[in-house]
Amino acid sequence: LSQLNIVKIGGDIIDDQECLDQFLGSFARMIPAPKILVHGGGKKVSELAEKLGIPVQMIDGRRLTDKATLELTLMVYAGLINKTIIGKLQALHCRAVGLSGADGGAILAKKRPVSTHDYGFVGDIEAINNNIFNLLLDSNYVPVLCALTNDETGQMLNTNADTIAAHIAVALSRAFNCSLYYVMKLSGVLRRFDDPDSLIPILTYDEYLNLKENESISGGMIPKLDNAFYARKKGVQNIFITGYEHFQSGQKGTVLA
Amino acid sequence: LSQLNIVKIGGDIIDDQECLDQFLGSFARMIPAPKILVHGGGKKVSELAEKLGIPVQMIDGRRLTDKATLELTLMVYAGLINKTIIGKLQALHCRAVGLSGADGGAILAKKRPVSTHDYGFVGDIEAINNNIFNLLLDSNYVPVLCALTNDETGQMLNTNADTIAAHIAVALSRAFNCSLYYVMKLSGVLRRFDDPDSLIPILTYDEYLNLKENESISGGMIPKLDNAFYARKKGVQNIFITGYEHFQSGQKGTVLA
Repeated sequence: LSQLNIVKIGGDIIDDQECLDQFLGSFARMIPAPKILVHGGGKKVSELAEKLGIPVQMIDGRRLTDKATLELTLMVYAGLINKTIIGKLQALHCRAVGLSGADGGAILAKKRPVSTHDYGFVGDIEAINNNIFNLLLDSNYVPVLCALTNDETGQMLNTNADTIAAHIAVALSRAFNCSLYYVMKLSGVLRRFDDPDSLIPILTYDEYLNLKENESISGGMIPKLDNAFYARKKGVQNIFITGYEHFQSGQKGTVLA
Repeated sequence: LSQLNIVKIGGDIIDDQECLDQFLGSFARMIPAPKILVHGGGKKVSELAEKLGIPVQMIDGRRLTDKATLELTLMVYAGLINKTIIGKLQALHCRAVGLSGADGGAILAKKRPVSTHDYGFVGDIEAINNNIFNLLLDSNYVPVLCALTNDETGQMLNTNADTIAAHIAVALSRAFNCSLYYVMKLSGVLRRFDDPDSLIPILTYDEYLNLKENESISGGMIPKLDNAFYARKKGVQNIFITGYEHFQSGQKGTVLA
């Protein structure tokens, strides 16, 4: 199997111009060529919502996406962030092509059913269609995916970027030896959140469950690791949770066992 | 040469949901398959600018694009409008892939030099790269271009959609028999603006110059026809200025001689 790198960058990197530029430089230089970038939108959606007087509603750290908020995610993820990244990558001679899950029918999703909460226009992934990825990768283009999908009726849906990266890696791991990177500012999974020297070099699923029970890890790290271990269990060959500085220097941060 | 349809839709269609849906239905059904859609953003950028308190500055009907306005065009053209169209086309089984001029290095532009006016982040097209278009068209994907380009430094630039459509048609007319459609609400070029029965079925360049001198046509129709005749002179085989209802019923509106 030939090698494929799938790299998801966190909102903390998107929100920091200098950090984003550094990351994009190392992503553009990354060898071997076949690679995919996945991103969300950082704080920009909330900032824009505030300016426009659209209420920001969160449930357990997840954004409730009403119609007005969906429009903001379309604008920020697929417009502002995706095209800013594409422009910068082009200037670095990286043959980037921006996609949402709707483009080329790449990702089919379903509006999350209303149970205890109604998350609104939020998509759960139903299927990945490899065709557009294979076509672009075969011609040395670099797909840059933003955190949007659509359902069968053509309704666009806000979809978690960590989950998109995991599902794409699973789908492509049959044809490629995939390395899935979750890149953020933090250098990896830490045993103690406030101690940068407590980086866990290799994380097993059991140890992850322990850390979660002890509340050593919390917040956004939990859904990220849930997605990462989902990909691991579904056969994705190599998975790394790593800082952008580690990524730049070729270090691996935390490797999933 | 095999047939290729390049269709540019006007802002008046984008601004009218029902009209857009009707148009997209006829675009999705359009035969033969190889086709490209080009769009701008309608009134949405100005609406959003007003809500955000960003001043809208126009010079001779052209938008002055400062940094804040450029961000709005990225959000509206590549985000809101492009992804709404992509979702709708996917639901109509049209294999649409959204692109800006930056994606896949499709269009290289240059920031317009400052002369009597400084238009800001506005791009003039330098070159079209056929590769990404050929790759997508060969695999029966339908490129949907929004009115943005980038320059060599990766700076994104607001670029007229009529001009993008004309330049793409010129570049692809060497390999395809191109039909370039400018679709709007009006049924074509009218001899008298207020008389819908005065449609000109075939328009020569000389007659266009006369109409312009007589002020029979004005406003947005002039740059549109300038772009259309540019494409005609550069060898684009078939050019139509037509209404969406004509387009739907297979009529041609005004044909450029």
